[in-house]
Amino acid sequence: MRGPRMSTADDLARRTRAFVAEHVLPVDDTYDGDVVAAGGDDLRLRLQAKAREAGLLTPHGPVEHGGLGLGMVDRAAVFEEAGYSLFGPLALNVAAPDEGNVHLLDKVARGTQRERYLAPLVRGDVRSAFAMTEPAPGAGADPAALTSRASKVDGGWLLDAHKHLITGADGAGFFIVFARTSGEPGDSGGATMFLVPADRAGIEVVRHVTTMDASMLGGHCELRLRGVFVPDEDVLGEVDLGLRYVQVRLGPARMTHVMRWTGAARRAHEVAVQYAASRTMFGSSLAGLGLAQQLIADNEIDLAATRALLQQACVILDQGGRASKETSIVKTFAAEALHRVADRAMQLCGGLGVSADLPVAKIAREIRPFRIYDGPSEVHRWSIARRAVREITGTRTGGPA
Amino acid sequence: MRGPRMSTADDLARRTRAFVAEHVLPVDDTYDGDVVAAGGDDLRLRLQAKAREAGLLTPHGPVEHGGLGLGMVDRAAVFEEAGYSLFGPLALNVAAPDEGNVHLLDKVARGTQRERYLAPLVRGDVRSAFAMTEPAPGAGADPAALTSRASKVDGGWLLDAHKHLITGADGAGFFIVFARTSGEPGDSGGATMFLVPADRAGIEVVRHVTTMDASMLGGHCELRLRGVFVPDEDVLGEVDLGLRYVQVRLGPARMTHVMRWTGAARRAHEVAVQYAASRTMFGSSLAGLGLAQQLIADNEIDLAATRALLQQACVILDQGGRASKETSIVKTFAAEALHRVADRAMQLCGGLGVSADLPVAKIAREIRPFRIYDGPSEVHRWSIARRAVREITGTRTGGPA
Amino acid sequence: MRGPRMSTADDLARRTRAFVAEHVLPVDDTYDGDVVAAGGDDLRLRLQAKAREAGLLTPHGPVEHGGLGLGMVDRAAVFEEAGYSLFGPLALNVAAPDEGNVHLLDKVARGTQRERYLAPLVRGDVRSAFAMTEPAPGAGADPAALTSRASKVDGGWLLDAHKHLITGADGAGFFIVFARTSGEPGDSGGATMFLVPADRAGIEVVRHVTTMDASMLGGHCELRLRGVFVPDEDVLGEVDLGLRYVQVRLGPARMTHVMRWTGAARRAHEVAVQYAASRTMFGSSLAGLGLAQQLIADNEIDLAATRALLQQACVILDQGGRASKETSIVKTFAAEALHRVADRAMQLCGGLGVSADLPVAKIAREIRPFRIYDGPSEVHRWSIARRAVREITGTRTGGPA
Amino acid sequence: MRGPRMSTADDLARRTRAFVAEHVLPVDDTYDGDVVAAGGDDLRLRLQAKAREAGLLTPHGPVEHGGLGLGMVDRAAVFEEAGYSLFGPLALNVAAPDEGNVHLLDKVARGTQRERYLAPLVRGDVRSAFAMTEPAPGAGADPAALTSRASKVDGGWLLDAHKHLITGADGAGFFIVFARTSGEPGDSGGATMFLVPADRAGIEVVRHVTTMDASMLGGHCELRLRGVFVPDEDVLGEVDLGLRYVQVRLGPARMTHVMRWTGAARRAHEVAVQYAASRTMFGSSLAGLGLAQQLIADNEIDLAATRALLQQACVILDQGGRASKETSIVKTFAAEALHRVADRAMQLCGGLGVSADLPVAKIAREIRPFRIYDGPSEVHRWSIARRAVREITGTRTGGPA
Repeated sequence: MRGPRMSTADDLARRTRAFVAEHVLPVDDTYDGDVVAAGGDDLRLRLQAKAREAGLLTPHGPVEHGGLGLGMVDRAAVFEEAGYSLFGPLALNVAAPDEGNVHLLDKVARGTQRERYLAPLVRGDVRSAFAMTEPAPGAGADPAALTSRASKVDGGWLLDAHKHLITGADGAGFFIVFARTSGEPGDSGGATMFLVPADRAGIEVVRHVTTMDASMLGGHCELRLRGVFVPDEDVLGEVDLGLRYVQVRLGPARMTHVMRWTGAARRAHEVAVQYAASRTMFGSSLAGLGLAQQLIADNEIDLAATRALLQQACVILDQGGRASKETSIVKTFAAEALHRVADRAMQLCGGLGVSADLPVAKIAREIRPFRIYDGPSEVHRWSIARRAVREITGTRTGGPA
Repeated sequence: MRGPRMSTADDLARRTRAFVAEHVLPVDDTYDGDVVAAGGDDLRLRLQAKAREAGLLTPHGPVEHGGLGLGMVDRAAVFEEAGYSLFGPLALNVAAPDEGNVHLLDKVARGTQRERYLAPLVRGDVRSAFAMTEPAPGAGADPAALTSRASKVDGGWLLDAHKHLITGADGAGFFIVFARTSGEPGDSGGATMFLVPADRAGIEVVRHVTTMDASMLGGHCELRLRGVFVPDEDVLGEVDLGLRYVQVRLGPARMTHVMRWTGAARRAHEVAVQYAASRTMFGSSLAGLGLAQQLIADNEIDLAATRALLQQACVILDQGGRASKETSIVKTFAAEALHRVADRAMQLCGGLGVSADLPVAKIAREIRPFRIYDGPSEVHRWSIARRAVREITGTRTGGPA
Repeated sequence: MRGPRMSTADDLARRTRAFVAEHVLPVDDTYDGDVVAAGGDDLRLRLQAKAREAGLLTPHGPVEHGGLGLGMVDRAAVFEEAGYSLFGPLALNVAAPDEGNVHLLDKVARGTQRERYLAPLVRGDVRSAFAMTEPAPGAGADPAALTSRASKVDGGWLLDAHKHLITGADGAGFFIVFARTSGEPGDSGGATMFLVPADRAGIEVVRHVTTMDASMLGGHCELRLRGVFVPDEDVLGEVDLGLRYVQVRLGPARMTHVMRWTGAARRAHEVAVQYAASRTMFGSSLAGLGLAQQLIADNEIDLAATRALLQQACVILDQGGRASKETSIVKTFAAEALHRVADRAMQLCGGLGVSADLPVAKIAREIRPFRIYDGPSEVHRWSIARRAVREITGTRTGGPA
Repeated sequence: MRGPRMSTADDLARRTRAFVAEHVLPVDDTYDGDVVAAGGDDLRLRLQAKAREAGLLTPHGPVEHGGLGLGMVDRAAVFEEAGYSLFGPLALNVAAPDEGNVHLLDKVARGTQRERYLAPLVRGDVRSAFAMTEPAPGAGADPAALTSRASKVDGGWLLDAHKHLITGADGAGFFIVFARTSGEPGDSGGATMFLVPADRAGIEVVRHVTTMDASMLGGHCELRLRGVFVPDEDVLGEVDLGLRYVQVRLGPARMTHVMRWTGAARRAHEVAVQYAASRTMFGSSLAGLGLAQQLIADNEIDLAATRALLQQACVILDQGGRASKETSIVKTFAAEALHRVADRAMQLCGGLGVSADLPVAKIAREIRPFRIYDGPSEVHRWSIARRAVREITGTRTGGPA
């Protein structure tokens, strides 16, 4: 039980659960969560067609473009059900980075940008990527280190950028590119966001960076933009205000990550409990042995705490708050807690837990990078601590913003 | 920020914070949290008189008897502010076990019992104790092991009971005694609750069990009842349904413990952050050193997760749910998390952290037993695991109910 | 510094380090530790030929068959250096399960068995497998559950066995098969070990169980033996004493696992520290940030504690002790500690830490199953606790032997 | 079993165990480990007289002065047995700070200093204190912050010092005072050690800093020296080389702390296991329940790892190595591990675990400050990390030496 709501969102969650069980999990488990092996964009189109039919596509998208307009609190239960399969978010068009890009564009895009970029994304016609992270010593956990540059030319800008670990880049229809329009690397301002169709001259997807996770369509890519022209009308929001929009995107995007991974971790937990209840050891059900019960109980606690923290941050976001501190806390706690859940589930299943016979090891593998993606836990802790010192004492200390 | 509420409860919380800072903390810190050294019942009466004046007494008590009638959600912020001082709960008449007994009596007491037992408790005229725990091999974490007996006699019952670790027993005006009216030790039913004035013949407070905590008025006592007569009208609720009422009391009582200890842990944290911000080490503010920031951030996370879990369980309780699973999870998580907070606060303050120069060590000392009182974490985990197995698989496994 | 020894073993360790760096790591890193992709048995033969040339092959093998006769204490430093590459143990012929099988055969094999089975294994002419684990509900963490059977026939035995997760089975020259010669599943005695050439009629390698680790040559296989004839002379040791020999093998085999994984974890740690020292973040070297220093220090502590525990158990084993308790403690601690080391190393390297650009993620992936293989931590803890209760109180409690 | 030694040290350990059980534990448990309540220096003299009779006094002291001359490895088992009672170290004259001061004086004192200061300490005629720590912003975890000053005058020095948390100061016969003879606070050199009889004019024991531990004779005191004259002959070692001697003292002193606290933690563990084996719960022995077994096993692992790390550092120290890194690792690990042991023991004993009915809570209380005394874990981690970065990469990073 997740609270008093009995609503459209609960109904959507129930229907999502059934949809995922029927259409998505069988594919996920056949291909061990490997989205390329399972069909890549073909798979996406096939699954999204079914979701569209079922009235489940892009539930967080603006209603004007065909979405269901769910707020953050309402997304929680639905996205958790989607995340129960590694391909569920793709099927419902709520996968990263598109989900966060829809959110961002809905808040910031103006005029024809909405029709040209937001609408096709909500409909699932294209995928997109958010090109911010750079290789060392560029922008990563520290966005002020941004080195990519946009130079003003007549009618627009020329972009020169080197990006890294750009999720979903391969096959994306357009990129949201983060580049410096003023200042130097190390300055905290001066960044701008640009909308860039993928077929624009000068863009190269250099390579897929091979990572331990395999379920993100379009991979995590290295990307180069060499003198790519972007007309003024494709500046997203205002020039030099890019970091402000990052905040608009980041808080909610972290929360929806948490929602999806909560679903995946819950699946690992449920599979493990099923296994433990069916397995006999030392004359008892494995699930009846104290050392197994500790694993099970700790999983329940971690899942409950993750959901409770999530709920509180979502309430604030739905009320228009930025919830910087809250989302940072939720992201940090959840990334660690959910990986613990998957890790304990592996342990509970013994030899099968680390095999592909059960879906537990793949879930652990997919969740692990979340402790790094979207800000490593260490950077979040740094930021949480600095804010705490400021709130409690009024004193500023050094470190990330 | 704890959510969208802006209400009487928030106002009460603010006023409680001011009251505690002005009237309670100075006493607490003078006596290192030792309630006997600080004056015992005299201190209680003095502080409660001030709270009454300030309109803050017994905020959870029924309005008909002079309380403020706060529900569980509303109690959270107020009780946290009370718990900021170890004597705050006493001052507001929201300390264990009276607070939980008020809750229990309000739900179960009938007829004249309300006037004779509940009303004076709400007014702060008397203290009370809940006499359930027994020495080994009697009732403790396993209530079915109950050995204390009530034998039916004409017009009432004769109680023979040996109780242990009965909080607040010394100086209590009456006891709520838990004794077996049918069945044998090991049977899960057959327990009944009795209301027993402390001056009834045959009651002996054998001794204070010396424990590491020192802020609970009336101690944790060993108690003997030998042939104590209780008239039928002082049976609380129905005969043989005692365990059902335990559930009425336990869930909320665990949550209010969590509220109070959250306040205490927050104080340890705030004192430590103040200290760290003022202390220079290795050419930096201690609060600016990464290893200190880890401690600060982890405290923020633990406090936030505790409050978030608490909030969700309180919503369910206010809606009339039993929230057995939720309160068990909250209690287990919070008892461990809040002790971690106090422990990290000690660590942050270095040598002063384990001294009486700062209020941190005393808070750690007072919180530690909460991982054992009201059900050790291990027993809660056992119960949480069994319930999870049942919910996920439909299978029952052995262990505590 | 690992103690006062300055010996042949130290010299061997140094030469092993150089050998691994020159000949093994380049292959390991080209193929991301995937032994099949890197060439499988061809790779093994190539690397072992080089190790033979360098005088480093089978350093723990009996001298009579061409090994170097190293005891357990001396193995520690050498095997750690071998383990620095995932393929190093294969190159030196100290990989599981052959390494443990050499140890077992050296202790138990008699007469012509030594020449027919032990000698070719020491020379690296063949690989072998230890076929004990069975699918549920057979023998796993609880060896008494053994269901595979050997029936006495004229001149030998007929084996009917179903085995699971048999490391190295695919391509092995022979199996050491564990089957019941008396008693029923659940009885603790009655098990016997048989030496069975892989080309014997009735043996089927059913499939590779796909697991998260990829560096074990011959995989983790499902295996069936249907009426396989084994002559009396190929019984290993005495009939019905199989469990006793398991103990001969298990203690040392667990320790050599720890040695190898210590090397792998050390590599992850060193790569991460190199990365952290070279990476600039928030105006500082990453390695100079407190939250990174915590990760680095904890890795140093975990590595040191693992080596210290290992050393003590090896001393006892070299003196002829069984060291059941000690090896159980070392295995449990090390499997968890070394995975923590690899996990922190990933964290320290940020996005690259979970990528194949650095060798950290693959090491974490390979080490993780060690918390399950050779007895899950939970079963070891159970056994450690029971022994502690027995030693401290003289009382026996239920659970695994 | 702790290794292959079978020696005088083992015999001493056995005799120490018997001595502590017969003469020391009864006093310790009667007074809940409170050394003042138990008699203070009178108790010390009484117990030491018995230890002298039993041939167990000052086993680490130089033989020339009546000690037994034990090296570090040999001390481990003996001091652990002494530490089994909180007063055992006092009884054997191996308590901090005298034990470390004997070690320091034996290495550094020259000429008549040996007879005047070392000899009476070895004989147990006097106690001593090591006066280094200062209140903020002076010397603590960062010794370079030293503010106490010694000014050269004819024939000696005048000391002006403010010291804090000086263990054993009240009642000490003499102090080893650490003061700056050159340079300014923040400079890493320029500190000198002085031998100062307690009755010298100008010394004031300002107060006992009340701390959570109660078993250290002479308390943890604030100390002032105002113009205290020290003749040149009472300079300990060379002028300006004080920090070098601190290293001579610190490494071994940390190890002997670990030895003693290992004994105390082992007692808590054994008492808890005895309790768990005798207590019945939910129809089983508590010691047979899985969640209790986890606590028991983790205690065994923590104790074993502590002893193993300790052993390795002691071997190096006995060989004349400084073992800075090793002792830092051992101290950090042990302080945390031994507190975990005591904490789990409390948990295992339920309500009695936090009471004075069992000796577990007092042990937890006494051990906790060890994570702060002698360098907080955080400072040690910082130092361990910096050294690791230097060893692995050759790069220096900022932080404590």
